[in-house]
Formats: sequence, C-alpha cells, structure tokens
Amino acid sequence: PDDPTTAWVFRGIVALIVVNVVAAILLTDDRFRHAFPYDFRMIEVISLVVFGGEYLLRLWSCVESPRLRGRNPLQARLSWAMSPAAIVDLAALLPFAIMHLYPTDIRALALVRLLRFFKLARYSPGLASLLEAVRAERHALLACFVVMCGGIVIFATAMYELEGPAQPDKFGSIPLAMWWAVVTITTVGYGDVVPLSGAGRIVAGLTMIAGIFLLALPVGIVASSFIEVIRRRHFMVTWG
Amino acid sequence: PDDPTTAWVFRGIVALIVVNVVAAILLTDDRFRHAFPYDFRMIEVISLVVFGGEYLLRLWSCVESPRLRGRNPLQARLSWAMSPAAIVDLAALLPFAIMHLYPTDIRALALVRLLRFFKLARYSPGLASLLEAVRAERHALLACFVVMCGGIVIFATAMYELEGPAQPDKFGSIPLAMWWAVVTITTVGYGDVVPLSGAGRIVAGLTMIAGIFLLALPVGIVASSFIEVIRRRHFMVTWG
Amino acid sequence: PDDPTTAWVFRGIVALIVVNVVAAILLTDDRFRHAFPYDFRMIEVISLVVFGGEYLLRLWSCVESPRLRGRNPLQARLSWAMSPAAIVDLAALLPFAIMHLYPTDIRALALVRLLRFFKLARYSPGLASLLEAVRAERHALLACFVVMCGGIVIFATAMYELEGPAQPDKFGSIPLAMWWAVVTITTVGYGDVVPLSGAGRIVAGLTMIAGIFLLALPVGIVASSFIEVIRRRHFMVTWG
Amino acid sequence: PDDPTTAWVFRGIVALIVVNVVAAILLTDDRFRHAFPYDFRMIEVISLVVFGGEYLLRLWSCVESPRLRGRNPLQARLSWAMSPAAIVDLAALLPFAIMHLYPTDIRALALVRLLRFFKLARYSPGLASLLEAVRAERHALLACFVVMCGGIVIFATAMYELEGPAQPDKFGSIPLAMWWAVVTITTVGYGDVVPLSGAGRIVAGLTMIAGIFLLALPVGIVASSFIEVIRRRHFMVTWG
Repeated sequence: PDDPTTAWVFRGIVALIVVNVVAAILLTDDRFRHAFPYDFRMIEVISLVVFGGEYLLRLWSCVESPRLRGRNPLQARLSWAMSPAAIVDLAALLPFAIMHLYPTDIRALALVRLLRFFKLARYSPGLASLLEAVRAERHALLACFVVMCGGIVIFATAMYELEGPAQPDKFGSIPLAMWWAVVTITTVGYGDVVPLSGAGRIVAGLTMIAGIFLLALPVGIVASSFIEVIRRRHFMVTWG
Repeated sequence: PDDPTTAWVFRGIVALIVVNVVAAILLTDDRFRHAFPYDFRMIEVISLVVFGGEYLLRLWSCVESPRLRGRNPLQARLSWAMSPAAIVDLAALLPFAIMHLYPTDIRALALVRLLRFFKLARYSPGLASLLEAVRAERHALLACFVVMCGGIVIFATAMYELEGPAQPDKFGSIPLAMWWAVVTITTVGYGDVVPLSGAGRIVAGLTMIAGIFLLALPVGIVASSFIEVIRRRHFMVTWG
Repeated sequence: PDDPTTAWVFRGIVALIVVNVVAAILLTDDRFRHAFPYDFRMIEVISLVVFGGEYLLRLWSCVESPRLRGRNPLQARLSWAMSPAAIVDLAALLPFAIMHLYPTDIRALALVRLLRFFKLARYSPGLASLLEAVRAERHALLACFVVMCGGIVIFATAMYELEGPAQPDKFGSIPLAMWWAVVTITTVGYGDVVPLSGAGRIVAGLTMIAGIFLLALPVGIVASSFIEVIRRRHFMVTWG
Repeated sequence: PDDPTTAWVFRGIVALIVVNVVAAILLTDDRFRHAFPYDFRMIEVISLVVFGGEYLLRLWSCVESPRLRGRNPLQARLSWAMSPAAIVDLAALLPFAIMHLYPTDIRALALVRLLRFFKLARYSPGLASLLEAVRAERHALLACFVVMCGGIVIFATAMYELEGPAQPDKFGSIPLAMWWAVVTITTVGYGDVVPLSGAGRIVAGLTMIAGIFLLALPVGIVASSFIEVIRRRHFMVTWG
C-alpha cells in the first residue's frame, strides 16, 4: 500500500464495489430499472472483467505470499481458493452467471449482487477493526445478549399476563408480547403495540427504564473495546 | 469446571433450560400448542428427571462444600435447602406438579415454567457479573433513578397544566401525563400521546433534551462499573 | 448524620416527602380523589406539623452553624431565612394556606404540593452530586446545547424547503419543522410527523445519523463528569 | 478577549446573531410575520449596520494579524477576503440585498438568513472544539459510517425479501426498505413502516439489537474524542 499505483488500484476497486452495491439497491426499484437498463448491464460487464481479473491475478500471485511460500504451487493455490476471502471474491462473480440463467428473477439477483458488499470488508480496515473488537469482548457481549433476552422474556411474560386478556391480538401469547418487549427495551418504540391499562403502563414504564440500563451494557463494552482496537491499529490498510 | 465431563454436563443442563424456556414461550401460542402437544410433554418429563436428579445430587453432595463442612449432615442439608439457589432449583420442579393439578391453566403454567429461566443465572457468570456491577454502584443508580423520577414528575406536571385542558383523556391527570413523560424521557416515543399546542411542544422538546442528559447518567455508571467487573472476573464459571 | 436517631428522623422526613409527592400526583386523578378524600387531608395536617416544626427548629438552631456563628442571632436568622434552602422549606408549607383560601382549585394545589419534591434535594446527596457534575461541565454542556440547537435548525430548514410544499400543516414553517427535528434528533420518533418524499426521507436519514453523533456529546460529558463527582464524594450525606 | 470592552462587543454580536436566527425562524410562520412586520425590518437594518461595520473593520485591520503581516496591504486584504471566515461574514450581508431584489420570496430569504448561524461558529469555541474532535477521529467515524450503512443495506435487503411481497408499498424495493432500516437502526422508530409477519418481526428484532451495538461505536468514539479536546483547550475563546 506504500506504492501510489497500488493505492489508486485499491480506490478504484472500492469505488467499483460501491457502484455495484448502489446499482443492486436501485435495481429493485421499478422506476430506476426501466430508466437505466443499459447502464446496469454495463456495470455488470465492467465488474466481471475487473473482479474476474483480480481473482485470476490473486490466484496466480498467491504462491508469493509469506503464508503459502514453500508449498508446491498447485497446493498453495488450492489452499488459497478455499480461504474465506477467496470465496467472497468468487461469489462476487456469481451475478453474471445468474443473470444469464434466470434473467428475470430480480429478487435473487439483488441478493447475489449484495454479496459484493462483503468484498468491501477486504479493503476496509474499519470493518476488520470492528470484527476484532467484537471478537475481543465476545464473552461480555454474549452475557449482555443473554441479559437482554432475559429482560425481554420477563417483561413480555408480565405484559402477557396483564394485557393479554384485554388485547388478545397484540399480547395474546408470549411470542406476540416479545415483539412489544424488544421494540420497547431497545427504545425504538414504533407505537403499533401499546399497553392501555394502568397496570400495563406501570410495567411498560419499568420496561423502558430497565431498557436504558440494559442498553448501557453493550454500549459501554463495544465502545471501550472498539476505541482500544482503533488506537492499537491506527487503521493500517490490511493486505488481502 | 476443569473436568471436560463436568463442562459437558453443564452445557447439557444449560441447553435443557433454554429448551424449556423456549417451549414455555411457544406453549402460550395456540398454533404451536396444538401442533406439538406430545413434544411439550416429553420435554417436561425429561426436565423432571434431570432437574430432580440434579436437585437430589446437590442435596446429597452439599455436605462436602467448604462452606458447610464441619456441621452435622442433616443440619448442612437443611441449611443448603434454605439457600436462594436451592429454592430456585426446587421451583424448577413445580411445573410438573401444576400440570397434574390444573392441567388446563396455560397462563399459570407459563409463569411457573419461566421460573426456570432464573436457574440459568447459576450457570451464567455474565448474569452474576451484572448483578455484582449493579450492587457495586447501587447508591449511584438509586440517585439516577430518583433524578429520573423527579424529571418525569416535573415534566408530567408541566404537561398536565399545559395540555390537560385540551386533551383531558391523555393529559387530564398527572398519572396520565406521567405515561407520556416516561415514554418521552426514555426516548421510546410510541406516539400514542403527543402534545398539539405550541407551548406543549416546547415543553416536550425540553423533556426530550433533558431525557438525553438523564439517560447519560445510568449509561455512564452501569457501563463503567460493568466493564470493571468483567475485567476483574474474566468470566470465570462460578460453582453453585 | 452519625447519630442513629438523626438518621431515622432523616428517613422519616424523606418518607413523608415521598408520601406527599405521591399524594399530590394521585390527587389530580378524579377517581383517587373521590375514593380517599379524608386521607389526603390527614397527610396535609401531618405534613404541616412536621415541616412546620422542622422549619422552626432549623430557624432556631441556625445560629449554631459554622457559617453564621459570630453574627448576632437576629441577623443570622434573617440571613438563613433568605437562603434558597430555607425558601424551599417555607414553600413546602404553602399548600395548607392555599387549601383554605381556594379549596377547589386542584390544578394550582397540585403544582404547589409538588414544590415539596425540591425539599428532597436537601436530603438526597445524589441530586446534589448531579447538580455539581452539571456545574463542573457547564461550558461543555452549553456548547453541546448550541450544537444540538444548530443541528435542529439546519435540518428543520432543510425539511421546510423539501417537505413544506407537500405537507404544509406539518412542515409549513420552520417552527413546525423544528418539532419534527427535535423529535428525530433525540431519537424519540413519535411518528406524528413523517417525511413522505424520497428527498425528504434521505434528509431525515441524515438527521437520524447526525442525531446519534449529537447525542454522543452530552452522554459522554455528563457520564464522565458524574462518575468523577460520585467517586470523589462517596455519596456522603450533606448537612442542610 | 482579555479586555472587558471586547468581551461586551463579542456578546453583543452573538446576541444579534441569535436574534437574527430566531427572527429568520419565526419569519416563516405566517402569524408571526403578519404580527410584527416592522420589527423584522428593524432587525435587518441593525444587522446590516453591525455586520457591515464588523466586515469593514476586519478588512481594514487584518493587515495587523500575525499571519498576514509582512505582505503588502492589498494582497493581505485579498488573502483575508478569500478565507472561509470572511466568506461567512460576507454571506451574512446577503439577506439585505435579496430582500430588495425579490421582496416576496420568503423561502429563499429564510435560507439566506440562516447562513448567519454559521457566523456563530466564529464566536463559539464549543463548535470549534466539536469540529476539531470530529476531525481527529475522522477515520474511525468514517469506518462507523460504513459499518452502519452496511447494516442498513443488509437488514433492508432481508426485509425486502421477507416483507416485500406482503407490503409492496412499504418494503417493495430496497430503497423503500432502507427507510425502515435507518429508522429502526437509529432507534427512532416512527412506526409508519412496521413488519407484520413473524419472520419479519424476528429480523426486525435482530435489527434493533444490532442497532444498539452499531450505535455504541460512534457514541464511544465521539464522546471520548470530544472529552479529550475540551480538556486540552479548556474552552478558550478563539480569535477570528
């Protein structure tokens, strides 16, 4: 990444991925698809050439990488092709094949095209840092998740008992009440399911205040962990 | 917990508790209950055997624990049976009895089955850490709670004065206005109760901004305390 | 506060204040007022005796306090009676007078009774700590407030330009659009005012993401400041 | 800023900017505009004199500033007039011109008047601190933004697949589903777009919990960075 040419090639690939993701998003909207059918095909052809070329170059040059040096070339290339990064790169070539096999299935095509988003993680040290931060505190985050699930189950059960008889379509079973509980504990609060009785509102108020305390846990843990990781790495660009 | 067999027994019990909680949740939904009546009974029988066996084994072996050694066996066993952990274990056996006494009361059965969730706390060091973190900062958290209640009362009173005459069914008494205030201060914002006048909206805006500042207190305290606790304990598995 | 008798007197006064605040809240609800008219009067009489006695004892003993010792007694007592704490104590005696002058004005009575809530601050070191924390970071918090107001004005203006012509009753002026902006930036999200056009939704999305960043400022400042204050004071009970 | 006269002049200019911004906001409301037409013109004339005078004085005195001393006066004045601060100052004089050219276009006038808000940044060290804090952590914040966009795209795609067929007007394309995703991930939760199917609600619940974790990143980064900046600068008033 010291070489300015390499940096420009990187930026070009990142830009092409972003263009692809934006195109895949707009593709699902009928007005955009009918307005620019030709351009979407052009992007697909350019992507096939660039991502295909990148894949072949990486497959050819992977024998030079320090991790694989010393093995025989075929074995090294097979070992690289099985790595998660190489599979993400290969998946980025899928949409072209799909487009020719099922040319009209827009829904499947959108999904496959968005797989290219994960390709961005290879060029984005921020995403890699996030994964590292999450990995470092995975036990604490799992405990948070258990505590949050516990809170959701307990408050959902309380509301099922209190509001269930009065609003059977909204609190008539614990799974239904859990929808209300997760919307409330995360402070999203759509307002599609709301308690009406006095007792239900008191329990809902406690749920909201508990939500604040339950939110504090992952916020504190992720934030402190991520800050530490970004301080340590200084966002160096990682080599694939 | 060093012994791999013990670790697998622990994981098995945790899995059985999770299965029980999920079954208790799904049991309250009519479609699930009618689709799998047999399986829910199977889970209950397996749970009775495992949790009953666990209870008897713990009752038998508790005389060996460092805390109770030295007392005579009967006294030690009685002392253990009175501990909160043992009561939680005993409560986990209740659903079987209830099911045979009142076989049709689904609502009570759901509640008693979910008591098993608390059994999970014995095997989850994360939950134990959370309780420890909350205990360590209980004075600060109580002060936060008082400040938050004060904010809710003050803003509810202001809205009762401003919006009460115009919307008597929503702001016609301070308890009603407190429902709006708690929904707003915790930033949940259902939207079922909303001020309509200009003065009411200005007070509501101040409530929201005050809410942000009031939320900062528990978030900061719980987060910093929990981070400290998890650093100190390194999530060691606690022995019952 | 070392003396156990003093501690019990303190707790009794705190309990009486809490009872008064709860009574003042319930008083505004017609059902509660008609159900327990006698008890509310009893609370008022007991409060008059206790708070009146407290006021007279403090007025009599204030000459002993280190701050006022050395002055002549009358001057010391006048100086104490002018202090904010003494005015809060005197205001706590007002409801009795109001009740006899305008016995039916429930709305005014509720407001005056809730003034007693501020009396709690004298006995709650947590509230005193919060005020201290807010005071210590008042410049930073003012800057946050300016930044937040700036964000609200800028995004409200943008929405007034984009959605104003289509929804004149909701975005037809900047003050109206500011109601939407404050509800969105604080992540409350009532949903009573929502953009409908594509451009409006893009600006709204940016407002929400900006809201997250703007919220981070007061949360970080208040939290870090409050944590520092509570560590320094260890929640010692302050003497009035 | 040591000189008390300078401090009062600063406060007067800040007050005039605030009056201008408030007037520009109220101007867009028909009732206010018809009630006080004369005063709004008065504010405009006073602003023209003060801000015009300030601009001319700064233009005249800028040759004395350490940065520009040594150059010839004309060159120094041109160099100052091209700086962002000087352009903001000049823009603050625009509304007077616009008012005489298009006296009835309230919408454009409001926008141009609000440009004066940016003038406040010159006199507010808090705003300058915020910009500095954002600049210091711009790489980390960009990574957060990418992660958040990734989350929005992924969850929007999942909901497009799950809820799209059932609610085509709300989840019928990925851009539409992204509106739901951004409202949910930022925990705003308007409630205008809500999943109805069981699978959609499970994905929505995961989106909310992911939103909590994604929010933790910018909160932690901005908060820690801003705290550091304000500690370093102690909110010294910056000289324009």
